[in-house]
Amino acid sequence: MQLDLMTIFFQPLHLLASTTETADSSLVLASVLLSLVVVYFASKLGGELSNRIGLPPVLGELVGGVVVGVSALHLLVFGDAETSSSVIMQFLTFTGSLSPEAANSVFHAQSEVISVLAELGVIILLFEIGLESNLKDLLSVGLQATVVAFVGVVVPFAAGTAGLMLIFGVGAVPAIFAGAALTATSIGITSRVLSELGRLNSKEGQIILGAAVIDDVLGIIVLAVVASLAKDGAVDVGKVIYLIFSAAGFLVGAIALGNFFNKSFVAVVNVLKTRGELILPAFIFAFLMAYFAASIQLEAILGSFAAGLVLEETEKRKELQQQIIPIADMLVPIFFVTVGAKTDLSVLNPAIPSNREGLIMAIFLVTVAILGKLVTGFSVFGKEKINRLAIGVGMIPRGEVGLVFLGIGSSVGILTKPLEAAIIVMVIVTTFLAPPFLRIVFPDPEPAALSNTAENP
Amino acid sequence: MQLDLMTIFFQPLHLLASTTETADSSLVLASVLLSLVVVYFASKLGGELSNRIGLPPVLGELVGGVVVGVSALHLLVFGDAETSSSVIMQFLTFTGSLSPEAANSVFHAQSEVISVLAELGVIILLFEIGLESNLKDLLSVGLQATVVAFVGVVVPFAAGTAGLMLIFGVGAVPAIFAGAALTATSIGITSRVLSELGRLNSKEGQIILGAAVIDDVLGIIVLAVVASLAKDGAVDVGKVIYLIFSAAGFLVGAIALGNFFNKSFVAVVNVLKTRGELILPAFIFAFLMAYFAASIQLEAILGSFAAGLVLEETEKRKELQQQIIPIADMLVPIFFVTVGAKTDLSVLNPAIPSNREGLIMAIFLVTVAILGKLVTGFSVFGKEKINRLAIGVGMIPRGEVGLVFLGIGSSVGILTKPLEAAIIVMVIVTTFLAPPFLRIVFPDPEPAALSNTAENP
Repeated sequence: MQLDLMTIFFQPLHLLASTTETADSSLVLASVLLSLVVVYFASKLGGELSNRIGLPPVLGELVGGVVVGVSALHLLVFGDAETSSSVIMQFLTFTGSLSPEAANSVFHAQSEVISVLAELGVIILLFEIGLESNLKDLLSVGLQATVVAFVGVVVPFAAGTAGLMLIFGVGAVPAIFAGAALTATSIGITSRVLSELGRLNSKEGQIILGAAVIDDVLGIIVLAVVASLAKDGAVDVGKVIYLIFSAAGFLVGAIALGNFFNKSFVAVVNVLKTRGELILPAFIFAFLMAYFAASIQLEAILGSFAAGLVLEETEKRKELQQQIIPIADMLVPIFFVTVGAKTDLSVLNPAIPSNREGLIMAIFLVTVAILGKLVTGFSVFGKEKINRLAIGVGMIPRGEVGLVFLGIGSSVGILTKPLEAAIIVMVIVTTFLAPPFLRIVFPDPEPAALSNTAENP
Repeated sequence: MQLDLMTIFFQPLHLLASTTETADSSLVLASVLLSLVVVYFASKLGGELSNRIGLPPVLGELVGGVVVGVSALHLLVFGDAETSSSVIMQFLTFTGSLSPEAANSVFHAQSEVISVLAELGVIILLFEIGLESNLKDLLSVGLQATVVAFVGVVVPFAAGTAGLMLIFGVGAVPAIFAGAALTATSIGITSRVLSELGRLNSKEGQIILGAAVIDDVLGIIVLAVVASLAKDGAVDVGKVIYLIFSAAGFLVGAIALGNFFNKSFVAVVNVLKTRGELILPAFIFAFLMAYFAASIQLEAILGSFAAGLVLEETEKRKELQQQIIPIADMLVPIFFVTVGAKTDLSVLNPAIPSNREGLIMAIFLVTVAILGKLVTGFSVFGKEKINRLAIGVGMIPRGEVGLVFLGIGSSVGILTKPLEAAIIVMVIVTTFLAPPFLRIVFPDPEPAALSNTAENP
């Protein structure tokens, strides 16, 4: 290796880089480290600015993600983009660490690692939310939450599908797919905002959270129906029945497990004497539940949420809540910044013809998406004083769940470009509007709940 | 998709698994979750048992890793092994989640993710060690540490190379390579054991830590010399000079930076008001330093260690030490279990002919490796009472650094099978003997230091 001016300052990361296995892995580590620096910088800057202007920090993290992501700076782009579009890969290549030939595999490994860290982030977030929630409180609003969830699935689905077919002349199958994408609620965004506003344990917060969980399950069933419809032109009834039973079995099983598992968990933890004696058994449980939920086709986050709910009933609750905070602070921002970074705002550019048609459909979809969830609040029965508007608003963000629907729809190839763009715009608008809207409908934080969630004024 | 008996219970993780991008990533997540469960289970079981019999927990984590790794249960195997040997992949394939065709890419993504998490683990460990160390204390033993490091590099290198050439008739270049593999000290293992024994801040602990850092830098220089010798038959003097200057520049620069950076870090943190206001700026700094160290061909862990040392000088020290504990508890075990899991004990099997020759050479290398480091303690000058034996023992573990040498040696193809096996045995024996040896030479923990490191009796 000769020393020229460039390599004097930035030498390749490893000796014999081209001949060793370890070379690649040290470049992957370098790109992961740089990506994390970008993520943390974007999340902190965005979160703080958002907080200063009175909005929930999570909105700033999403916007921060958009700024560093595929729509703008290209500092954080993911596997489905071109390797050469990643500024971090350009930087590593420019500084001589990375050969252009190796760039592809390093880029893919890096986006795989960051994506998994983001997924671990939202798993940890829901575990933390579970630890802050109370199963009995949640069950006491169970019926109301169920009604909210059902209304919030049926109304946007029916109105969206019908409108697309009747007004825009979209075919039945793509219209049903787009309608299905309107049903989901992002538990991640909703629960994080509620927690930031100190409203997670309010009655409204519990109804929203419960409804979002049921909504997630309903969304998975709707997705199964729609996907088999798109694939074979017929509904796979066996699969739908399986999903309904496995989802019900999982939720009931997790609750039943709680009573039995509580004591053995505490007993095990009390026996352990080396570092990590509480957090590691908790993670073994949470990750197993997350895996189990995923393996029966539910979402991994439902598993970690259930694990959090179960452990909330133990005497280790307080200690665990304390220990989970720094871990959540480290991992959760990766999720939100990644969601923002993956959001491609170029669909909003009216200079592209297909976007224009899409934007008009998008106005319709956004309207249905917002109104269809707002009505859910008014489906809450009972005479007590309750913030119905807040419940409706809490159900609005589609977030990553909407993007999963979109991803499957695109991969099957049944969505037209304009319809695809319209769905993306709907997801973006609902996701980004929900945090400030929630801030408005919950004007003054509850002082009692506030102490729990720390920093937000 | 038809429902047969198997898929009734374990359905494929995602609908339309074969047609979507997301399918793969959810399988990667599932395999990462299962891997983490295995890691945490092995680390907790091993660590606790080790602690019960009076040994440092880290030894149990290493042994736990060996048990679940490539030498025994194959629950945790990595990218250079066959996909089909991974029990987790077998399980995912058996339960119908994973198609045999997709297994390869999922397996590689999973081992990439776990490897990066392990590397983040050791980066966090050294950051934590830095936060627990004091720069002034470290500098006050700087000269002694330098002497220890130099003796600990020169003696094993010279004795090992000469012995292999004279006794075993090994050629000059492979003998020099093996000698070089004898020089490194594993900062990770040494510092973790010292911390567990509550001896990190003792004079011996500081000398060992300082010497291990300098040793790491010397090892990198030795590696550069040896690697260019193996490749071109001549030493690349320019590269060696570059390495010496960049290493010295980095260490001096980091120390100088400390005084300037302290105040601005605290000022920034005090302005921030949203969650993660302390830990995220700290990670931005630590990860940047780790990247920077790696980019000038030092180890990433030297960067995070320097970052920890710098932040130890700020008023945020205590708070940061508290917050880093759960994060370290989550990530550090991944590193030690992974080191164990990657250790292939089959080289110890005397039924294989090449192992027999290797084992005889191994006896020689182990002897040189242990004695060559033990003498370093007696090179410490000064008349004060100091545990010289402990310093020598603290320098013994070769750990992952020894394996890096081996990996480069193998990839260049200059090591014979027996010599390769002998080096592996040397690394294994020194790594696994050091923790119990350190326990013996530090019989009673210092009560004052103990409160710092929590649980160990």
